[in-house]
Amino acid sequence: MATETIPGYDFGAPDLQRSPVSPEDLRLLERTLLWSEEDDRYLRMAAEVLDGQVDQVLDLWYDYVASHEHLVRYFAGPDGQPIGSYLERVRARFAQWVRDVCRRPRDQAWLDYQHEIALRHTSAKKNRTDGVESVPEVPLRYMVAFIFPITATMRRFLAARGHGQADVDGMHTAWFKAVVLHVCLWCQPYAAGRW
Amino acid sequence: MATETIPGYDFGAPDLQRSPVSPEDLRLLERTLLWSEEDDRYLRMAAEVLDGQVDQVLDLWYDYVASHEHLVRYFAGPDGQPIGSYLERVRARFAQWVRDVCRRPRDQAWLDYQHEIALRHTSAKKNRTDGVESVPEVPLRYMVAFIFPITATMRRFLAARGHGQADVDGMHTAWFKAVVLHVCLWCQPYAAGRW
Repeated sequence: MATETIPGYDFGAPDLQRSPVSPEDLRLLERTLLWSEEDDRYLRMAAEVLDGQVDQVLDLWYDYVASHEHLVRYFAGPDGQPIGSYLERVRARFAQWVRDVCRRPRDQAWLDYQHEIALRHTSAKKNRTDGVESVPEVPLRYMVAFIFPITATMRRFLAARGHGQADVDGMHTAWFKAVVLHVCLWCQPYAAGRW
Repeated sequence: MATETIPGYDFGAPDLQRSPVSPEDLRLLERTLLWSEEDDRYLRMAAEVLDGQVDQVLDLWYDYVASHEHLVRYFAGPDGQPIGSYLERVRARFAQWVRDVCRRPRDQAWLDYQHEIALRHTSAKKNRTDGVESVPEVPLRYMVAFIFPITATMRRFLAARGHGQADVDGMHTAWFKAVVLHVCLWCQPYAAGRW
């Protein structure tokens, strides 16, 4: 899907808030994650490997959320039923996020959009982008907990194109680091001065 | 080391605060992590595999912290120099934490001690246990970021006793889930009502 046709995908939009996370904060987080140029190379490899598989990745993640009542409620309306259009719109952006993790340089535009994504999980901005009436915030603990499923489930897709074990391991390690990096940034609004 | 000889290791102490995390919160977090009885079985296997290796695990983790100025500062005094006795006392508890992750049932005493550990990373209680004058708090982002090194570095130790790939994978997956679970709990004081 061309990114301009994804509703609410506002990467690079001029009215985004500037991220409160500085480029220096980001650099220190990357060092904490032992990020290297090899990880960037492996993410580019992952981009090619995942090309054509992102829908299946999303199928798996959505099945996981749908099968857990305590998670699907963050997509539910006042009647407790999941809002189909909300699920669908978020899904398209989530798929684009997978592509962006693998391909986007981590520059100021990227930092600013991570902050926008962060806010969209909190009472500051959740529901607004999609014009829905759902629960106001995803609790911090689930943002952190998602690191496990979003990392662990990716391995089979990274291995699905016949790469050797060293490449699969390299891509999976880079993906793991990238997921943790994103979640670190997405935690910022929950803790502000203590972030 | 017998646990009663580890300074500040207060598991089960009667004056610990009760965790604000309910057993139901914990159960839902475990479901979010797709926790199964197999994971508990693999953690018990990991306990045996890690027996006699915990010091080497800590050597690796301490080398990692020591080689990153922006991390070792959380062990530093007002003069910016790491406080040797603080590093040493935390190390003994950190080693015991590895053993506890693998062996302790996740009951109320366990929940309460996780909350105590959480507080000891924050301005509520950092430095106090060890009577040191260091920076008042570890920022939330580093608590989350540590999920990567604490998980990734463990694999070699889990593989060091000749287990087959399926067992090593199983132990490593269970360890990954356990690390994420602990960090989820340790995030609570940073976000309180938004946790």
